[in-house]
Amino acid sequence: MRVFGDAQSGNCYKVQLLLRQLGRPFEWVPVDVLKQETRTPEFLALNPAGQVPLLVWDDGRCLPESNAILLHVAEGTPLLPVEPWTRAQVYRWLFWEQYQHEPTVAVSRFIVHYLKNPPEQAERLAGLQARAHQALRLMTEHLQRQPFMAGSAYTVADIALYAYTHVAPQGGVHLDPYPALRDWLARVAAQPGHSRMGE
Amino acid sequence: MRVFGDAQSGNCYKVQLLLRQLGRPFEWVPVDVLKQETRTPEFLALNPAGQVPLLVWDDGRCLPESNAILLHVAEGTPLLPVEPWTRAQVYRWLFWEQYQHEPTVAVSRFIVHYLKNPPEQAERLAGLQARAHQALRLMTEHLQRQPFMAGSAYTVADIALYAYTHVAPQGGVHLDPYPALRDWLARVAAQPGHSRMGE
Repeated sequence: MRVFGDAQSGNCYKVQLLLRQLGRPFEWVPVDVLKQETRTPEFLALNPAGQVPLLVWDDGRCLPESNAILLHVAEGTPLLPVEPWTRAQVYRWLFWEQYQHEPTVAVSRFIVHYLKNPPEQAERLAGLQARAHQALRLMTEHLQRQPFMAGSAYTVADIALYAYTHVAPQGGVHLDPYPALRDWLARVAAQPGHSRMGE
Repeated sequence: MRVFGDAQSGNCYKVQLLLRQLGRPFEWVPVDVLKQETRTPEFLALNPAGQVPLLVWDDGRCLPESNAILLHVAEGTPLLPVEPWTRAQVYRWLFWEQYQHEPTVAVSRFIVHYLKNPPEQAERLAGLQARAHQALRLMTEHLQRQPFMAGSAYTVADIALYAYTHVAPQGGVHLDPYPALRDWLARVAAQPGHSRMGE
């Protein structure tokens, strides 16, 4: 299978990290978001939403949406629990990630790290950073009660939330106030087969 | 089980519609978002994210995130396919709904319908409405090729996207340009056990 992705994107890194951790071979097809390579007619024919990551099988089937890819690929592995209540927690945190965490933590990083912090975005950035801290506080309080997001075991919910959390400081959102969160980042990075972003 | 929800919220309506369609009994606990009832200490103890809907079992377990509730409750029913590829399409559209559709279609409606269209939000609203139309165009093109979002059968992906699409005009996002989308709305509303928002 092929993964169309941008090496700087946390959403793309999620998929890369999962496939490597599961030992599933794949070809990485680099797509540069800043160069508008997700907006070409060729790419839009594969994913009309114009976004990476995109998983493409040899028979041409395409699956977009990073967290949908995580659920689909992890099915049948220990990274996606079968027990209904634990599995519901995985779902809960995957949707929370896309609705509360990514639009604040990742977008702060996008403005600072990709766009080089343009002054005209300063007010928007300050609002996003404040909401990013709210999201990280919520994660921290949750991780004070259990070692991983969905409970006692490492799952795709940890992969999804690790992706942008560990690079939050690149968006000016520093992790010093959140020791339990930093401990969790270390636990995730210590998982067998972990690989770093951009490697 | 109890569902904490706001009768005007599409996210809450999703859960109500699914439970009614499956014939699962539940108690509806009204929570008024505009009156900040999701921000009280009592509610935040149940869901630290301060959002409805929230599913609460008799033993005290709580599940937030509308689309996580849909996946959890629909497991084992025809509304959540077991076949991996069809199921992946359900996941895809549920995440797309929360990332692209809800933040534009639902937030346009929130500004117009709840906040009564304050002039200071006019510029923001125009931007959201333009992006809402992009999302509805993408859905329309998809629905020109298949009767339901995840393929040939009605699933929780249709429930999730119906919730805010059918009330998009309340946000000034009119559906006249999208006949295939309106046909799909009629197909969803014709499903056995369908119930209307706010009923």
